[in-house]
Amino acid sequence: MSKRPLILVTNDDGISAPGIRTLISAMNELGDVIVVAPDSPQSAMGHAITINSTLQCNQVKIDDGPQIEYSCSGTPADCVKLGINEILDRKPDICVSGVNHGSNSSINVIYSGTMSAAVEASIEGIPAIGFSLLDYSWNANFNEIKKYLINITKQALLNGIPKGNALNVNFPKLKEKDIKGIKICRQANAYWVEKFDKRVNPQGKEYYWLTGEFINKDNGHDSDEWALANGFISIVPVKFDLTDHENISYIKKWKFLN
Amino acid sequence: MSKRPLILVTNDDGISAPGIRTLISAMNELGDVIVVAPDSPQSAMGHAITINSTLQCNQVKIDDGPQIEYSCSGTPADCVKLGINEILDRKPDICVSGVNHGSNSSINVIYSGTMSAAVEASIEGIPAIGFSLLDYSWNANFNEIKKYLINITKQALLNGIPKGNALNVNFPKLKEKDIKGIKICRQANAYWVEKFDKRVNPQGKEYYWLTGEFINKDNGHDSDEWALANGFISIVPVKFDLTDHENISYIKKWKFLN
Repeated sequence: MSKRPLILVTNDDGISAPGIRTLISAMNELGDVIVVAPDSPQSAMGHAITINSTLQCNQVKIDDGPQIEYSCSGTPADCVKLGINEILDRKPDICVSGVNHGSNSSINVIYSGTMSAAVEASIEGIPAIGFSLLDYSWNANFNEIKKYLINITKQALLNGIPKGNALNVNFPKLKEKDIKGIKICRQANAYWVEKFDKRVNPQGKEYYWLTGEFINKDNGHDSDEWALANGFISIVPVKFDLTDHENISYIKKWKFLN
Repeated sequence: MSKRPLILVTNDDGISAPGIRTLISAMNELGDVIVVAPDSPQSAMGHAITINSTLQCNQVKIDDGPQIEYSCSGTPADCVKLGINEILDRKPDICVSGVNHGSNSSINVIYSGTMSAAVEASIEGIPAIGFSLLDYSWNANFNEIKKYLINITKQALLNGIPKGNALNVNFPKLKEKDIKGIKICRQANAYWVEKFDKRVNPQGKEYYWLTGEFINKDNGHDSDEWALANGFISIVPVKFDLTDHENISYIKKWKFLN
């Protein structure tokens, strides 16, 4: 690349989360960085967007880096829309989201605000990557993965992410020296079995907390869950054309009214 | 079917919206209906779930039908999780969501609370359909599509929706006699160009409203947008495995650290 790339950075844990601070620091080594990130945590927001209320956006200064930062009242997808269409002067060369505090592998991609930001950018024709670390702790050691953040983003800038795709990158909770490498994977066939923790409030009214148990019945060695369980970083190319093309002919045989 | 099917009904416009009232009335003709729907509108919520706050759920009586109804404080996906795991005694035979006031065709499926409910049910192994009418009006005439709601759901119960799929059904804004029939389609390659309407509040602070223009550059006659524009009902089988399997081999060639 002849000139420095323009990099849009966002996340779903909020602009002051340690995960995004590490990602910003890594991206500063690769290009000119503009951050447009939520002003508060937006985990499990899926691909929500804000259409029935207003959005606020303020320039902020959080650390000493060269990046320019905006804190936004919306969801991760709102931040990407605002960044691309209102804040940036030109299309960014890439959009990176994260590093999420916790896994977005397998079915978690569906609920992920981190990945919704990356997918939103890919819908707008911009190469995009969502990064997540399998450690929910606020004090997770993101430095262990910093060189991979740079390597993967650099490769995406050099090679170009296929149109209609965003990359879902998950890191195992390991020290850098124990990471075995990178695997390109498919989304594992895994799911959550919900357990609702029913409680009674001081006024005697019932309420619930959503909890659950993660079930992975996928035995394939080409899935993201397998890679992560075996010490590898997983990369899954994720698409926003949700059509199951293989099943169109089956449904065409049904007896519909005409 | 020897016995009446158990049908879980939800939506994203809220339990009192005319669209869900028509859907409930149609489903009462097919089976035993349990409604678990949001207590307030949840449009454009994507696949959000509630993990950092509590959920409330109350049995309510809204009209004279035989259905049993619960009004829930969460998102559409929360309602499905609560319905399946906490409220129903057995797995429902099908979950239907809608009828949404407005389109969920093409890229709108990504932002849709209506479809997130259907996809959530399909993740839990339950056949599921999201219904939407291309009319945003609260007073849209849902009776024009009632016989199709029954026909499509009946066919899904009889034939079984393929595992890993939910159906995304959109109705054109037409009188029943003008509907030309049903097309099984792929998701059109269309998108929104955002326009942020920037305003100033009474305190002099800037804020934004998200608006946009819908762009369809897809010329194929097999897309949902084509079907709807030509007087047909569109049905797209939607999957929650987001992997773009075709691009895995391409990304495997990148020069990653190892």
